[in-house]
Amino acid sequence: MKYLDDDRDVRFNLFEWLDLDALLKAGPYEEVDRDQLGMVLDEALKVARGSVAACNEVGDRVGAQFENGKVKLPEGFAGAFQDLASGGWISATMSPEFGGMGLPESVGTGISEFLMGANTALGLKALLTRGAAHLIEVFGSDDLKATYCERMYTGEWTGTMCLTEAGAGSDLGALTTKAVKQGDGSYLITGEKIFITSGDHELTPNIIHAVLARTPGAPAGPKGLSLFVVPKVRVNPDGSLGAANDVACAGIEHKLGIHGSPTCSLVFGTNGGCQGFLLGQEEQGLAHMFQMMNAARYEVGVQGLGNASAAHQAALAYAKERLQGRGPSAGKGAGQSLIIEHPDVRRMLLMQAAYVQAMRAMVSYTGWCMDMAHITVGEDHDRWQGLVELFTPVCKAWCSDWGFRVTEWALQTFGGYGYTMDYPAEQYLRDCKIASIYEGTNGIQALDLVGRKFRMQEGRPVKHLLGLAGATAQTLASDPVLGASARQLADAVKALGGVLQGVPARENAQLLTVLNAVPILDMLGHVVAGHLLLQQAALAKQKGLELLQARGVDPADRPAVQALLAGSRDAAFYQNKVQAAIHFAHRGLPLVAAHAVALQAGETAPMEAVF
Amino acid sequence: MKYLDDDRDVRFNLFEWLDLDALLKAGPYEEVDRDQLGMVLDEALKVARGSVAACNEVGDRVGAQFENGKVKLPEGFAGAFQDLASGGWISATMSPEFGGMGLPESVGTGISEFLMGANTALGLKALLTRGAAHLIEVFGSDDLKATYCERMYTGEWTGTMCLTEAGAGSDLGALTTKAVKQGDGSYLITGEKIFITSGDHELTPNIIHAVLARTPGAPAGPKGLSLFVVPKVRVNPDGSLGAANDVACAGIEHKLGIHGSPTCSLVFGTNGGCQGFLLGQEEQGLAHMFQMMNAARYEVGVQGLGNASAAHQAALAYAKERLQGRGPSAGKGAGQSLIIEHPDVRRMLLMQAAYVQAMRAMVSYTGWCMDMAHITVGEDHDRWQGLVELFTPVCKAWCSDWGFRVTEWALQTFGGYGYTMDYPAEQYLRDCKIASIYEGTNGIQALDLVGRKFRMQEGRPVKHLLGLAGATAQTLASDPVLGASARQLADAVKALGGVLQGVPARENAQLLTVLNAVPILDMLGHVVAGHLLLQQAALAKQKGLELLQARGVDPADRPAVQALLAGSRDAAFYQNKVQAAIHFAHRGLPLVAAHAVALQAGETAPMEAVF
Repeated sequence: MKYLDDDRDVRFNLFEWLDLDALLKAGPYEEVDRDQLGMVLDEALKVARGSVAACNEVGDRVGAQFENGKVKLPEGFAGAFQDLASGGWISATMSPEFGGMGLPESVGTGISEFLMGANTALGLKALLTRGAAHLIEVFGSDDLKATYCERMYTGEWTGTMCLTEAGAGSDLGALTTKAVKQGDGSYLITGEKIFITSGDHELTPNIIHAVLARTPGAPAGPKGLSLFVVPKVRVNPDGSLGAANDVACAGIEHKLGIHGSPTCSLVFGTNGGCQGFLLGQEEQGLAHMFQMMNAARYEVGVQGLGNASAAHQAALAYAKERLQGRGPSAGKGAGQSLIIEHPDVRRMLLMQAAYVQAMRAMVSYTGWCMDMAHITVGEDHDRWQGLVELFTPVCKAWCSDWGFRVTEWALQTFGGYGYTMDYPAEQYLRDCKIASIYEGTNGIQALDLVGRKFRMQEGRPVKHLLGLAGATAQTLASDPVLGASARQLADAVKALGGVLQGVPARENAQLLTVLNAVPILDMLGHVVAGHLLLQQAALAKQKGLELLQARGVDPADRPAVQALLAGSRDAAFYQNKVQAAIHFAHRGLPLVAAHAVALQAGETAPMEAVF
Repeated sequence: MKYLDDDRDVRFNLFEWLDLDALLKAGPYEEVDRDQLGMVLDEALKVARGSVAACNEVGDRVGAQFENGKVKLPEGFAGAFQDLASGGWISATMSPEFGGMGLPESVGTGISEFLMGANTALGLKALLTRGAAHLIEVFGSDDLKATYCERMYTGEWTGTMCLTEAGAGSDLGALTTKAVKQGDGSYLITGEKIFITSGDHELTPNIIHAVLARTPGAPAGPKGLSLFVVPKVRVNPDGSLGAANDVACAGIEHKLGIHGSPTCSLVFGTNGGCQGFLLGQEEQGLAHMFQMMNAARYEVGVQGLGNASAAHQAALAYAKERLQGRGPSAGKGAGQSLIIEHPDVRRMLLMQAAYVQAMRAMVSYTGWCMDMAHITVGEDHDRWQGLVELFTPVCKAWCSDWGFRVTEWALQTFGGYGYTMDYPAEQYLRDCKIASIYEGTNGIQALDLVGRKFRMQEGRPVKHLLGLAGATAQTLASDPVLGASARQLADAVKALGGVLQGVPARENAQLLTVLNAVPILDMLGHVVAGHLLLQQAALAKQKGLELLQARGVDPADRPAVQALLAGSRDAAFYQNKVQAAIHFAHRGLPLVAAHAVALQAGETAPMEAVF
């Protein structure tokens, strides 16, 4: 698997940019050191590039199959999942008490990127398993924790989240699955769920479903929902597997991509024998489930990044081996040039790299905010937690939308071959598309942002963010290399700030906000990305200069600099970080002001149209 | 087939907006009248919605199959192609002398949109057949014309264009297929071509290939190419079919979409018996072929439009039947609303409609420029022809890029179901993607625009266009409904004009132009689209007012206006034309200024990056 070469930037984020030492001093991570983390990333990369990547193509071509009521996964999935389980990769960030590695989220994000980029269909199984187990860890009784957590974190059993029903996707309040309390304290579950990722398979002897259902007499709407653990196979008191638990798979979807990930219709309690166990409190189910949904939303953003990065690496590798035409510096009578010599191809590649780095900075920083929230208390905690909650829908929606766009640009880089199944670009494009839809469509994410997240903590998180981004722009305003880019960031912050201030003052503020939630999320995503990329570029520029100094190269001596860039992978890396940030500032950030036009004008044409 | 309901706008373009009467007065079209053209569109729509659309899904699911050296097309293709042939739809715009209908291009564009939207894989066969036949009509000897033209225009035989080879896609100068003149005046062809659309199949007993090849001693590069007619089966002097002509299909590509369109590798002359016939002059092949390529490029733009329009219609139909959540106007305790009540869904739908109408206006107007160039002479002709040539790469690239984007928005409108194969959105997305690649990648189109097309006729066409767009902005500047949109157009014209003036004055003008060819094309595409949409909106607004007057409704009486909009399909149509233009002006046109940022700054980061 040659398309996972972007780990240098993962390491830059973790080891050079984020203040890792501050984190590692704190209680939960005192036992962890930098060297260990480097080795963890090495090992994660090895398994991602190995068995996990090896079954990505067959996962797509053969896909999950539904036969005689059972779901069969493609060849290689069982072995690769076993490698994930035995390496601890399913639960790298989860509690050591139940078999997790206890690593910071900012490290787990890098691992998830590798796995999602190598094989999204398989990566999803890890994501959902740790998510469902974590629900049990937080909300389950001691019995439930003892029964399920460790076996899920270690991959002995897998997990799912069961929300959607045929008439209730975005509108969870309309769910109708029922849960009736029994004498023994358990609940009898009846209902049908659809679109359940990895809802059935034979990778593991048991599958543990986290199911939203309604108890008798509970109010209609989202507030009447409770959350249950529903195993596929009942578990005896001694932990051994008992009888089947009346959960049946009725079929799987045929879909655009992630063919190795069975999207199941599950029927609970056809024969009146589906046993579930309450997690937390009755009628608090949606609030509890949001813990898993938030983690999953963040990780869907990481999927967008992983798909985009893998697609970009594939395009880059192709551009370095494909001969076609003559580049601008080819001499007269020269043969065909590598297509990477063509300015338009370089533009496509740097645009991909810029957005990939932007997404990576966004999810790395969000992971780091989670870690900081984890190790702080009081106002400090609230500030970090505020950023986490603000960024969660942005990671999900911005990275899935722009991740898809990057896969499109990567496909285009291949020319005609990109459209064929001889190269992986078209699979990345298909696999990535789901990310803008599942775990709450990007429209739902945007409503969460402009509704709940802008208003939480009296609006402090978004103000805090604008302040941080504005400060970055100001710090770099007179930088000879990054100053022009910083001015683009300042313009973007101003445009977003103007919208956030101007819209609520309008008569139809509510409508304008809802109508423009998606564009506003895109504006915020670009501001966050520009802010983080410019921070990174300033650091990379400094590191690049230190490299020149260490090698005794005069920065004004262009041939000597070029020679160093050609010979030092690190020097080229820092150079490209700077160029990617400049490119993003001039090509991505201007979209913020473009979005602001309709909001400033109060344009509401969609409400006037008669469809 | 319920997804081809957009013909109302096709008719608006042709019968209400374009100055059709001026065209129909001219010699070639004197026999044609409006009523006839209306019936032609009715009939074309009937066949598109009928057998053509009926095999679109099976075309995708089963696809073309390659077995034992033969290509087999999916069930239904043979019958549908026969319907296209017998109805005259393959050659609606071609010369009646050889069996065509002789209709204007502005009518043919509507027909092509229907066919491409209904079934791209089949539409391509019609496109290539008339294109190859037209090459013979223009450049062939009387014998060749008599042998091939009518039989191709009537669909008895099909045609292809054979350019690409494994090492020569965008770089046609690197082609190596050989043609050696024989004693009888024919040529012996040897070589291998790849990516040949419908290069083999059994729909028709013969397939006529237009092949670029190199004669002995011809110069290297594009100037050494000649163009040949190469039939799959030799044709006897009496017109009957003779022996096979040593053209073999070596395989077909497995690809992202257009599965019903076999993408063939063809081997010419394996056994030394492949006979070809020169078209036009030796070493003028590429110039001759450009006639077919230009027509094909224009029609690929129509494909982008057709796919986008069909996807949008599907999304619109779904949004009108899917219940989910509660819209802003739903009363307390109301049940679920149709998703079309949600502002974010309305935004997605109007954005789709706006870009679809923009693409349609662009290709309709380009077709009309072709017609006007056809009936004029001298400076008039040059002016129309200049616009045709300027618009050709823009139609191809802008409509394929934004057509793909529309299919993405349409898929998103479906939520989770959009990702499944239960609905057609995902197929439109996959089928559309090829349009940005074949017939010259969009990067090649952009280089054609900024290189050849901006410079032709001493730059008059692009100046003419900017003048037209500026005049539209000025005319509507104080319009109470469209004034704000007109100001957006004025800003966009100014931004584009500034770039076109500013870049050539820079020291690195050549590099900046090549590096930014794609963004410049996108800027120009938006300006053309905004200009045409605002023209259309002004007309639609006027027609809407006339409707109100005719019904005695006071425009200030909002309930009465709403009632008319709800009850009159025409009133709603005009209202939506106005809203789509306003939406485009505020959401699409600001991208022009956004693109200008990097150009104004002279940003060249992709050239500084070390990949």
